[in-house]
Amino acid sequence: MNEYIKNGNRVTISELNLPDDLKKLSVQQCWYLCGEIRNMLINTVSKTGGHLSSNLGVVELTLSIHRNFNSPEDKIVWDVGHQAYVHKILTGRADMLSTLRQEGGISGFPKPEESPHDTFISGHSSTSLSVACGIAEAMRIQGKDNYTVAVIGDGAMTGGMVYEAMNNCCYMKSNMIVILNDNNMSISKSVGALEKYLTSLRNTEKYLDAKRRVEKNLTQIPVVGNKVAKGVKQAKDAIKSTILERNLFEDMGFVYLGPVDGHNLRDLDRTMRMAKSFHIPVFVHVKTVKGKGYLPAEKNPGEYHGISKFDIRTGNPEISAGDSYSTVFGKELLNLAKKDDRICAITAAMKYGTGLQYFGKELPERFYDVGIAEQHAVTFAGGLASMGQIPVFAVYSTFLQRAYDQLIHDIAIGRLHLVLGIDRAGIVGEDGETHQGMFDVPMLTSIPNTVIYSPSCYEELRQCLKKAIYKEKGLVAVRYPRGAEDVAFHKCSVCPDYDFICTGKSDTLIISYGRILNEAYKAQSLLSADGIDCDLLKLTKIFPLDDKIIGKITKYKTIAFFEESTGNGSISEKIGSLLMESHYKGNYSRISADGFIKQSSVKSALEKFGLTCNGIADYIRRKSVENGKT
Amino acid sequence: MNEYIKNGNRVTISELNLPDDLKKLSVQQCWYLCGEIRNMLINTVSKTGGHLSSNLGVVELTLSIHRNFNSPEDKIVWDVGHQAYVHKILTGRADMLSTLRQEGGISGFPKPEESPHDTFISGHSSTSLSVACGIAEAMRIQGKDNYTVAVIGDGAMTGGMVYEAMNNCCYMKSNMIVILNDNNMSISKSVGALEKYLTSLRNTEKYLDAKRRVEKNLTQIPVVGNKVAKGVKQAKDAIKSTILERNLFEDMGFVYLGPVDGHNLRDLDRTMRMAKSFHIPVFVHVKTVKGKGYLPAEKNPGEYHGISKFDIRTGNPEISAGDSYSTVFGKELLNLAKKDDRICAITAAMKYGTGLQYFGKELPERFYDVGIAEQHAVTFAGGLASMGQIPVFAVYSTFLQRAYDQLIHDIAIGRLHLVLGIDRAGIVGEDGETHQGMFDVPMLTSIPNTVIYSPSCYEELRQCLKKAIYKEKGLVAVRYPRGAEDVAFHKCSVCPDYDFICTGKSDTLIISYGRILNEAYKAQSLLSADGIDCDLLKLTKIFPLDDKIIGKITKYKTIAFFEESTGNGSISEKIGSLLMESHYKGNYSRISADGFIKQSSVKSALEKFGLTCNGIADYIRRKSVENGKT
Repeated sequence: MNEYIKNGNRVTISELNLPDDLKKLSVQQCWYLCGEIRNMLINTVSKTGGHLSSNLGVVELTLSIHRNFNSPEDKIVWDVGHQAYVHKILTGRADMLSTLRQEGGISGFPKPEESPHDTFISGHSSTSLSVACGIAEAMRIQGKDNYTVAVIGDGAMTGGMVYEAMNNCCYMKSNMIVILNDNNMSISKSVGALEKYLTSLRNTEKYLDAKRRVEKNLTQIPVVGNKVAKGVKQAKDAIKSTILERNLFEDMGFVYLGPVDGHNLRDLDRTMRMAKSFHIPVFVHVKTVKGKGYLPAEKNPGEYHGISKFDIRTGNPEISAGDSYSTVFGKELLNLAKKDDRICAITAAMKYGTGLQYFGKELPERFYDVGIAEQHAVTFAGGLASMGQIPVFAVYSTFLQRAYDQLIHDIAIGRLHLVLGIDRAGIVGEDGETHQGMFDVPMLTSIPNTVIYSPSCYEELRQCLKKAIYKEKGLVAVRYPRGAEDVAFHKCSVCPDYDFICTGKSDTLIISYGRILNEAYKAQSLLSADGIDCDLLKLTKIFPLDDKIIGKITKYKTIAFFEESTGNGSISEKIGSLLMESHYKGNYSRISADGFIKQSSVKSALEKFGLTCNGIADYIRRKSVENGKT
Repeated sequence: MNEYIKNGNRVTISELNLPDDLKKLSVQQCWYLCGEIRNMLINTVSKTGGHLSSNLGVVELTLSIHRNFNSPEDKIVWDVGHQAYVHKILTGRADMLSTLRQEGGISGFPKPEESPHDTFISGHSSTSLSVACGIAEAMRIQGKDNYTVAVIGDGAMTGGMVYEAMNNCCYMKSNMIVILNDNNMSISKSVGALEKYLTSLRNTEKYLDAKRRVEKNLTQIPVVGNKVAKGVKQAKDAIKSTILERNLFEDMGFVYLGPVDGHNLRDLDRTMRMAKSFHIPVFVHVKTVKGKGYLPAEKNPGEYHGISKFDIRTGNPEISAGDSYSTVFGKELLNLAKKDDRICAITAAMKYGTGLQYFGKELPERFYDVGIAEQHAVTFAGGLASMGQIPVFAVYSTFLQRAYDQLIHDIAIGRLHLVLGIDRAGIVGEDGETHQGMFDVPMLTSIPNTVIYSPSCYEELRQCLKKAIYKEKGLVAVRYPRGAEDVAFHKCSVCPDYDFICTGKSDTLIISYGRILNEAYKAQSLLSADGIDCDLLKLTKIFPLDDKIIGKITKYKTIAFFEESTGNGSISEKIGSLLMESHYKGNYSRISADGFIKQSSVKSALEKFGLTCNGIADYIRRKSVENGKT
């Protein structure tokens, strides 16, 4: 990091009143701070895990934003939000950085309840322009003249919401500034028209030079608001009409400034000041280097995007060598696709996360990374399916929420065959509320004719995927949790749609599926050791339920359903209603994971909901006492 | 329509083998056909109702498409799909046009089950480019060299999916052609950067001239595929680099052709041939006049967008003078907003449909028509709400599906206060599967902390809207059906969250809400006349249910719930499960409207599901006989 240290008095984060003091610092002092911030980031993330590369890339940019805007009166909206660590450091949370992403600690994403400087929740991509539009309009209505600044990465620019918002910005006469943090790198290298286009802009040195000349002329005029803005605009227009082509952002109604070197604080400060002078929507194009200042991350920013703990000296992340549900899914899909050229694989910018890297490498001609564009992904799959291909869309549960309408309108109504590999279904842990996969069950079961499988181990995942592709028709989902299998029950090679694991003498039945099934199985043993027998119904095809199931379970006196999903619209609710309609006279109860679930380890969250083996065993013990009493 | 008739032999639709014979016709013969088609459209829609203006605008364009492409081998994908009537006429369905949008007749939208020429279901906006991408890719995989043609209106271009798809088109080496049917007019006049931009392109006569010159040069070369395409491209590039600016569609990787006069068949045919020669994604910009050829519709295309029957001579549509749930909602919202400047109204291109025209006229500074952009609408509302405004988003139930993720991620997690006016909730009738409002209840109830009201009459709608704005917090929806109230029960001025309408001596309870509540009330009378007493539970706040309700209803021996929603995830399912968990020992049953519901009148659909007063009465009669037996 020595390049950032030149001379001037060192200041440290702990000495400053943040973010206000940032405005008083010299550029040299800021350089020191940037070094300190980078050290904090590397030290912290090496211990807690988290998003490193993206934060190392925005150190100077974040500093410049807080030097030139007055948060929280000026509103800073971070898109996706995982690059807000520097923002958190600079708004008084440096000493809490070590608690990052941990239960009770600070969140890995902006969160208004955490700080007034965190304007809006984010975690999903491409929302910042819409949020900023709303805030800017509210300011206009309320007669405020503060600024609204949306900071968005080039990866997030592929989401359709950005375009919907851009279409609306242009007619707003507001102090809205969009900063494109262009690091030429979304989570996995994105392909697409926009990326290509940004690359062409990024390399427009002539354009930048022209802008610089405009700026230079301007430095001779005192900055007094609208008058200057008009001057700038006229100068801009004059230059544009002679030597510059209009670009896409100008076509969409923005004043475009850039590209600017995102690691040159003087240039950044100057551009921010200029952006503030227009009082109409401005688009600032900033070029940054992901991982800047930490060589291992600069060399391999993809690996350092969202990572586990790592060794600072060697830069080696603790990458788990073993398999996960994602890799098992990805490998099995590749196996099947090698033998069947109808199979196509689709991801929305999550090639590695969903285990599709194997497919992408071996069968690139049937592999599609569409960018952060879940809506398009589903309807694109519909197009493929209408021609007899078999598209498989691997997607995180939480991101599939973006495509609910497309699943209904473009897949289910026409009964097209689409297989969904729903990764990160259930509790995901440290990412918290915005990323939990709690809604796919109610979402999908509301769509007529949908089929859902929920395997409990790797082998079952493979079997379910095969069934989804070859046995079922229409919209078929296979949902599986984040991470590795933790198998307690005997591995099934046949994978029936449902299975009773019976003791032969019990009048109590536990129902479960997916990851929790293993906990239920362990609970069965724990209870048996206590002399409490209970049977277990293991669901694999969780929807629609086999007609025979209700008839088979009504013989039990007590039924308890344990489910890793939000409760409303869940399978346990459906079984509850079916039992009622079947005049079941026994005791039915259900445990689900309700509400928005904050960051913690997966284990801790499951414990809180009573969805671990001990939780399940305790619940059944209590029930048997209650039932014994009555 | 005389302008279209010049000379040449007349041919009529009925004489032709369609669509193949279209290729054999002279341009003059096509002119006659266009006249005949326009007459058919006007005559039919004057009797059946439907989309007139948009279809009158695409007569020549549709003809030219079928003259230059070979459907169904070449795939034509109609965006939104309500402009596909001409396509239906030209693909062998002219004699069925009189059955348009009626039960058992042809659909008002493309439907693959109706004809092999209907490539893909559509009804919602902005899907065609994604579908076409998928089809074009499948063709590539399958080694086919047919064309895929997406036809999209300028209104639909505001949807984010279009942009997600454009981002993906560019790297496809496929015969994909996007035709922009630019009539400068979405359903209500759209504002936004794109519309402004299209207008600027639309008026680029210089650009058109330049294109014409390229074309002229080309006519001297025989058209032999790739070689010529290369030549064209080089000529284009040369011209572009000297006199033409790149435009947005070229920035996104398309070859751009246009603008072309969409009523000049020679120009259209020439452009189609040119578009076919590139074998990479081409964007054809066609200017059309909505309502072309029928003066009342040309003068007032908005009124003739989707209309009821009308008088051909006077051109007067049978506009119902009375109120509807939509207008009552719109007027009440305006009343409230006049007294409270925190209230903002948002529509996604449905100002008239949702009754927001009153608000838009009187309070334009707090009224937002964001275009067909439901995702942006919700998150934009989130931005407004985060600043203390009270946004009210009026949206059709079916289109709200587009914003499921935004409701969760940008509203509910942060507990921001957004009021949804969910119009067209329940069965909508003639528009059929793609437009039914059957999924908002499961969708919204799956989101933690959501509140839903379902009024049964206008006065209750007003009360519910007030409660949603002033009594509730967070995400609050008021859902109401399409059309006018049909009140059977005594109008309630206080509008309690729930109410028992009791006979005092019955052990049977009917539960319902919304429009169906009135049917249940009528059924109560019908049954009473038969000597069958039953009580009625009227729900107005349908979610979350008041805790006391379950305790109050378990005293009944028989409970039947009638619900105008899909059954999975519905309120009746929730009550079923709650009753089960409360050890209710009586009989519970529920009637909902499941599956994808085809076009018909609303009445006919409700009858089919047994959700009319007679259906409800019959059901209860059967139940009482059954219960009498047991």
